[in-house]
Amino acid sequence: MATATPRPAIAPAGSLAERYRATRALTEALLAPLSEADATLQSMPDASPAKWHAAHVTWFWETFLLRDHLAGYELFNARWPFLFNSYYEAEGERLLRARRGMLSRPTLAEIVEWREDVDATMESLFDRPECADLIELGLAHEQQHIELLLTDIKHALFSNPLGPAMWPLRYPSVRPEEGSKPEAESPSRRTDDWLTHPGGIARVGHQEDGFAFDNEGPAHRVLIEPFALSRRLVTNAEWQEFIADGGYRKAALWLSDGWAWVQRKGIAAPLYWRGEEHFTHSGWQERDPEAPVAHISYYEADAFASWAGARLPTEFEWEAIARGQDTSGDNRPGFSASAGNQLDGAAPPLPQGAGELFGDVWQFTRSAYLPYPRFQPAEGAVGEYNGKFMAGQWVLKGASCATVRGHSRASYRNFFYPRQRWQFTGLRLAKDQ
Amino acid sequence: MATATPRPAIAPAGSLAERYRATRALTEALLAPLSEADATLQSMPDASPAKWHAAHVTWFWETFLLRDHLAGYELFNARWPFLFNSYYEAEGERLLRARRGMLSRPTLAEIVEWREDVDATMESLFDRPECADLIELGLAHEQQHIELLLTDIKHALFSNPLGPAMWPLRYPSVRPEEGSKPEAESPSRRTDDWLTHPGGIARVGHQEDGFAFDNEGPAHRVLIEPFALSRRLVTNAEWQEFIADGGYRKAALWLSDGWAWVQRKGIAAPLYWRGEEHFTHSGWQERDPEAPVAHISYYEADAFASWAGARLPTEFEWEAIARGQDTSGDNRPGFSASAGNQLDGAAPPLPQGAGELFGDVWQFTRSAYLPYPRFQPAEGAVGEYNGKFMAGQWVLKGASCATVRGHSRASYRNFFYPRQRWQFTGLRLAKDQ
Amino acid sequence: MATATPRPAIAPAGSLAERYRATRALTEALLAPLSEADATLQSMPDASPAKWHAAHVTWFWETFLLRDHLAGYELFNARWPFLFNSYYEAEGERLLRARRGMLSRPTLAEIVEWREDVDATMESLFDRPECADLIELGLAHEQQHIELLLTDIKHALFSNPLGPAMWPLRYPSVRPEEGSKPEAESPSRRTDDWLTHPGGIARVGHQEDGFAFDNEGPAHRVLIEPFALSRRLVTNAEWQEFIADGGYRKAALWLSDGWAWVQRKGIAAPLYWRGEEHFTHSGWQERDPEAPVAHISYYEADAFASWAGARLPTEFEWEAIARGQDTSGDNRPGFSASAGNQLDGAAPPLPQGAGELFGDVWQFTRSAYLPYPRFQPAEGAVGEYNGKFMAGQWVLKGASCATVRGHSRASYRNFFYPRQRWQFTGLRLAKDQ
Amino acid sequence: MATATPRPAIAPAGSLAERYRATRALTEALLAPLSEADATLQSMPDASPAKWHAAHVTWFWETFLLRDHLAGYELFNARWPFLFNSYYEAEGERLLRARRGMLSRPTLAEIVEWREDVDATMESLFDRPECADLIELGLAHEQQHIELLLTDIKHALFSNPLGPAMWPLRYPSVRPEEGSKPEAESPSRRTDDWLTHPGGIARVGHQEDGFAFDNEGPAHRVLIEPFALSRRLVTNAEWQEFIADGGYRKAALWLSDGWAWVQRKGIAAPLYWRGEEHFTHSGWQERDPEAPVAHISYYEADAFASWAGARLPTEFEWEAIARGQDTSGDNRPGFSASAGNQLDGAAPPLPQGAGELFGDVWQFTRSAYLPYPRFQPAEGAVGEYNGKFMAGQWVLKGASCATVRGHSRASYRNFFYPRQRWQFTGLRLAKDQ
Repeated sequence: MATATPRPAIAPAGSLAERYRATRALTEALLAPLSEADATLQSMPDASPAKWHAAHVTWFWETFLLRDHLAGYELFNARWPFLFNSYYEAEGERLLRARRGMLSRPTLAEIVEWREDVDATMESLFDRPECADLIELGLAHEQQHIELLLTDIKHALFSNPLGPAMWPLRYPSVRPEEGSKPEAESPSRRTDDWLTHPGGIARVGHQEDGFAFDNEGPAHRVLIEPFALSRRLVTNAEWQEFIADGGYRKAALWLSDGWAWVQRKGIAAPLYWRGEEHFTHSGWQERDPEAPVAHISYYEADAFASWAGARLPTEFEWEAIARGQDTSGDNRPGFSASAGNQLDGAAPPLPQGAGELFGDVWQFTRSAYLPYPRFQPAEGAVGEYNGKFMAGQWVLKGASCATVRGHSRASYRNFFYPRQRWQFTGLRLAKDQ
Repeated sequence: MATATPRPAIAPAGSLAERYRATRALTEALLAPLSEADATLQSMPDASPAKWHAAHVTWFWETFLLRDHLAGYELFNARWPFLFNSYYEAEGERLLRARRGMLSRPTLAEIVEWREDVDATMESLFDRPECADLIELGLAHEQQHIELLLTDIKHALFSNPLGPAMWPLRYPSVRPEEGSKPEAESPSRRTDDWLTHPGGIARVGHQEDGFAFDNEGPAHRVLIEPFALSRRLVTNAEWQEFIADGGYRKAALWLSDGWAWVQRKGIAAPLYWRGEEHFTHSGWQERDPEAPVAHISYYEADAFASWAGARLPTEFEWEAIARGQDTSGDNRPGFSASAGNQLDGAAPPLPQGAGELFGDVWQFTRSAYLPYPRFQPAEGAVGEYNGKFMAGQWVLKGASCATVRGHSRASYRNFFYPRQRWQFTGLRLAKDQ
Repeated sequence: MATATPRPAIAPAGSLAERYRATRALTEALLAPLSEADATLQSMPDASPAKWHAAHVTWFWETFLLRDHLAGYELFNARWPFLFNSYYEAEGERLLRARRGMLSRPTLAEIVEWREDVDATMESLFDRPECADLIELGLAHEQQHIELLLTDIKHALFSNPLGPAMWPLRYPSVRPEEGSKPEAESPSRRTDDWLTHPGGIARVGHQEDGFAFDNEGPAHRVLIEPFALSRRLVTNAEWQEFIADGGYRKAALWLSDGWAWVQRKGIAAPLYWRGEEHFTHSGWQERDPEAPVAHISYYEADAFASWAGARLPTEFEWEAIARGQDTSGDNRPGFSASAGNQLDGAAPPLPQGAGELFGDVWQFTRSAYLPYPRFQPAEGAVGEYNGKFMAGQWVLKGASCATVRGHSRASYRNFFYPRQRWQFTGLRLAKDQ
Repeated sequence: MATATPRPAIAPAGSLAERYRATRALTEALLAPLSEADATLQSMPDASPAKWHAAHVTWFWETFLLRDHLAGYELFNARWPFLFNSYYEAEGERLLRARRGMLSRPTLAEIVEWREDVDATMESLFDRPECADLIELGLAHEQQHIELLLTDIKHALFSNPLGPAMWPLRYPSVRPEEGSKPEAESPSRRTDDWLTHPGGIARVGHQEDGFAFDNEGPAHRVLIEPFALSRRLVTNAEWQEFIADGGYRKAALWLSDGWAWVQRKGIAAPLYWRGEEHFTHSGWQERDPEAPVAHISYYEADAFASWAGARLPTEFEWEAIARGQDTSGDNRPGFSASAGNQLDGAAPPLPQGAGELFGDVWQFTRSAYLPYPRFQPAEGAVGEYNGKFMAGQWVLKGASCATVRGHSRASYRNFFYPRQRWQFTGLRLAKDQ
């Protein structure tokens, strides 16, 4: 078991080549604590094996950069695209998603060899201006899979009754009682601290320099009514109040589909909760009541907001606030900013702070994931990246403790189905003004 | 078998009592051509038996008007609310939706007797001002169930391999070739006739006098970019072109969920199509190529729009156009406006014209069904009417040939899941300007 | 609603024509208390609508007798075979079994008209010796469907939360306490009354004159070890003891498949039990503790036998005993033997006595339903009658309170899947000697 | 990857301790060519990971021998019984069968360490006479899991689109054409060579010295009619004829459940067939037409027999023949009898010969798997070994190329569900005389 516990951490600055190498190194660092068998597990169709992620991102580089832009390039192994294409119909038939856990071969060593081969060949493309945009996309793509790798392996380890740890816990899972804490506040009172917005016409969507996914644009104007957004994420303690008040048993709080889901699945707590504990990359640990709640579905987020007499923000409200806030920092304790492109030796991903917009947990909005006005997906297979998923999913904003540093931004639109809980998903309340 | 073939037709004017009687009479007129067995059929969980609709709307009147507002009222039968409550959690346990087809008892005669009893008792409430809003809601509710009754019984009859007819066809299913037709236009060219909108801030949502559902408000401003909306609905002939061009076999045209649905269900045409025919309330009939296509899912509508190089409008775009158009007429041929509150003796519901906004088919928008800013559902069980369905469904605008005349309006928001096809659903293309 | 409550009752003697008419009349008598809607209900895929049974048996006569043996016969309606063929592959495509409940048309009146037409035409075949065997088969076939009609409609009415009655109860559902009852016996002690058999070579299978199904032959010898068979069927009171002793919660009593079934379905009592009541053709009624338990699965019968320290008999043991017993009588109280071919005005089918081999309930054996040595199914479509079901089902012996009088015999082999419970199925214990 | 390709081979003679060591060594030899990830794969709920088999058999020794018979024994790891109990309800809760593939931990090395610990401790029990029967059971149990390990890993490797090999092929997969072959016989003619039996009373079931499972007894007499059993197993070439003749498309050949299965699953060939190849432990290989067909279901075996104008034998017929034949040899080419307890270096398991009763493939009988007269399962958890599976499965006789040498015998009763195909299952025809 590796003692190093890398943190997702990529310097947002740096040359393309430097950022490529750092991103690739991060993926490999996450494989280090895993056995060949750990890396092969698929615990549910939504999740993929760690090894598959490491291979799929390599397929992406090989296919859309090396194959398409390097004359004479020959595939490392002509049978592997069938295995590691995720969902690009334009790239042909592929392994059924639910069968990714059958890939004990190729071995991890073979995948790593492929990675090294692709990395070496990629060096010749960094200076080609016509490739820069695709390389940026490839970096963002691999960073997304780094987060998925982290959340998928968490679910896989959770599926083992032994609840094995991938990394040791590097700091106390629960904050020590502070002697100076002057007076006890009830958790619900603490949410009364709001960021207000006067409403009006806001310009949303990607509008700065730098990379963004196609789904973040075109930038456009929206009309916003006056509203307030909570300064703080909803915490474990507040969620415990919701449970204690019968939140999971009161139909009136729930969307109809959510209530059916709660009944059918017997849902009564966030994913990974067990008594006073929750499952982490360090195994079962005591929950910190002050930490943000994570691993909830949209249905649960919406029901909680109803119970709290509030609502979820729209994606535009969230973005309008984020544009007015300092979003450069993040609340990942133990992260060493001075480390630059080096892998951070801090703790495993675990939501902790509750005060900042980025980091800790992705925050549900009440906005369905839909195309922005005049959105057009790119031509070719890459156009399948985002656009074809614009049905039935919800936009989440911010970033989580498993998001690669520098990966997110105010216009970023993450999206999941309303029943999905295996990401670090939480919520921040909003209300009309 | 009845020879009368009533048309959904309620005068929008008239006193509350008059409109109550007309609406109730219409429900009963639709039961007339049905046998006891026809009226008991449930062909899929999405649909309900005709008899159940007739009873459920009566339960609504009895529960929310008579029981709640008439002192000393005793339920007609204390065991029936369990059978005929649809989805109001606040009203307690109820029959599983998928088992509504088990209700051979109470008999149709017993239901009719209940209806008469409730109708007689309701007379005492029409002059009570505090009941007026609820009575308006009850009328709109029964009118919605009239449309569901029509679409549900259509599916039930379709499920019988004999394809029985509920009404005789009252006019030719296909328009005769007109000698004066000067030159053949290809169907796709005919969609080039567009209503344009300059963009800007529009006020949408219910803002006139008169009844509207809670989900149509609050009225609010939205920003709209310049766009154009087709004057015409997409027709059967155009859909046939889409099929001929391999539309159902090209993954690139489809949303990811839609493609999975097409593959899993083997979808290759609209619901009710068979060769050159389609199934109608008059059994299997030849399709009219010039008539609007109907019985398509959101996935199909979206794929068609992609294929046509266009897109679906947002609900706000549609509404902005509708507010600028004359929406008083409707294209239901054979409807006798002079008949007033009388049942119309015209043909069975069948989309025919393609030029007007209301009538023929409900038109898919690309807007997810979500709450308007500052939307608050009503208190109590009635608050479950609309709000709790605001997840996973899509807004449709306009009205269909099965919508009770006077029931819809520009701000009306119909909503269905993206896979559902048994309503008279079609599409009207939009494009950016 | 009819007040007559016919009993399945066909004189075993009588000419072919007489027995034909009596059997057909019995089917129709069972339809009398049903509304058009009742007769159209299909409450689960295992069951069929009453109307469908009435039509299917008519299809059998029309197809295998009239069409195949009457020159120039024209089908009453050429589209109906598709609807009413049950499972005869050789007869072509047919309506999916689970969609039989969609047949609101043809109407009951149309089916009755068809029945009359077929009956009239059949008269010309009774004197044709080459048709006699097929007519006997057709009679046995319609009698089987009479029993299915009775058990299917029972399940359909049970599926209605109102629990409607098809017939009034004609006698007390529970026997009055008899003053003369000298001393209370515990139910389990009462099963100690055994019929013993010395073992040896027995000849089993159909070996007398008269009709039998192909699966009852060829007659052949089997070796039997000494054993005993209980004189009495297991009663409701004994089953209640089994429940009280935790029978449904002790894995050790159950077959592995049975335990999985109990867990998955949450089974904790026989089908149709609710508190102290059970559902009957006369609605919910108090259970008679002394009456035989009914509506249990093979899994439950096997678990009960294990609990009782006994076992189920083999089909050969049961038959060996039956051949040595007087099996002419049956324990259907209220049946008027003198009524001959007339319909009996007695009570609805309800297990009551517990002492005789035939009647009350079908009795599970531990024998899988397999071909007898040298069994050969008949040529042609009729060969699909029994043979193709010889996998995964279990043999039941005797007859039930819903079996047409004269229909069963010692060699009769009824068969059902081990999970099925909607027949009047019970058990009689056996043990080694 | 190991180059040694061990064959299941245990000397039937030898002391208990010797046979224990040889059996344990064989399990471990089968793990040798597997990576940690290979050994963790579970490709379907019917199959288990190789590592799980290695652990489960160890759990069996630890639980029923060490824990129950060695005073003061402490479990190696108290949390592992939950993971490695298969189906013994008396031993408490356990991991859901379908989740066995989630066990990346404990690692293979940890399992091997456990195995060594248990092996060392077991040494103290071999001289304890009261343990001898349980040790024999444990040996038979581990040998059964050796066969399951072989068939499960085959399915797991097959589930990988790369079709990886576990062992190299050690001999040509197809026999060379022999120049001396005098005249071509059609495959079907070659089955005309029959072993005949005059019928009469036969004594079946375990009746010799030595170990047998409880389900093989008690020995008892059965009556058998004259019959013949084919000398040869049905071959690949004959199965190809069946396919070519439309065998999978003719409903008349199939049991009703089998036909539904064929239709629902789209079955058109044995499992592991692809064109002219089949999948083996050495990857995709050309099929030998003369080798016995393998990997068929009961439904397919029964349909083939119908097509061939024959039938399957009963388990008693098969056993009656086996008792009259020399069953000591087996047709596993390349097996070195002189090797004694040593692992054999022969080829991977692959059916080849077709002439002998034991080896190559398990042979379906038409007998349902039911208790023999007076059968009583053992007391306690071990009593769950066989008895509780006596419902819905079929008896297979003989042994397969994956069966440990010495493991089977004439009275041996293997059993599987009629849909299962992942074992080396084939058939031998029978007919009445």
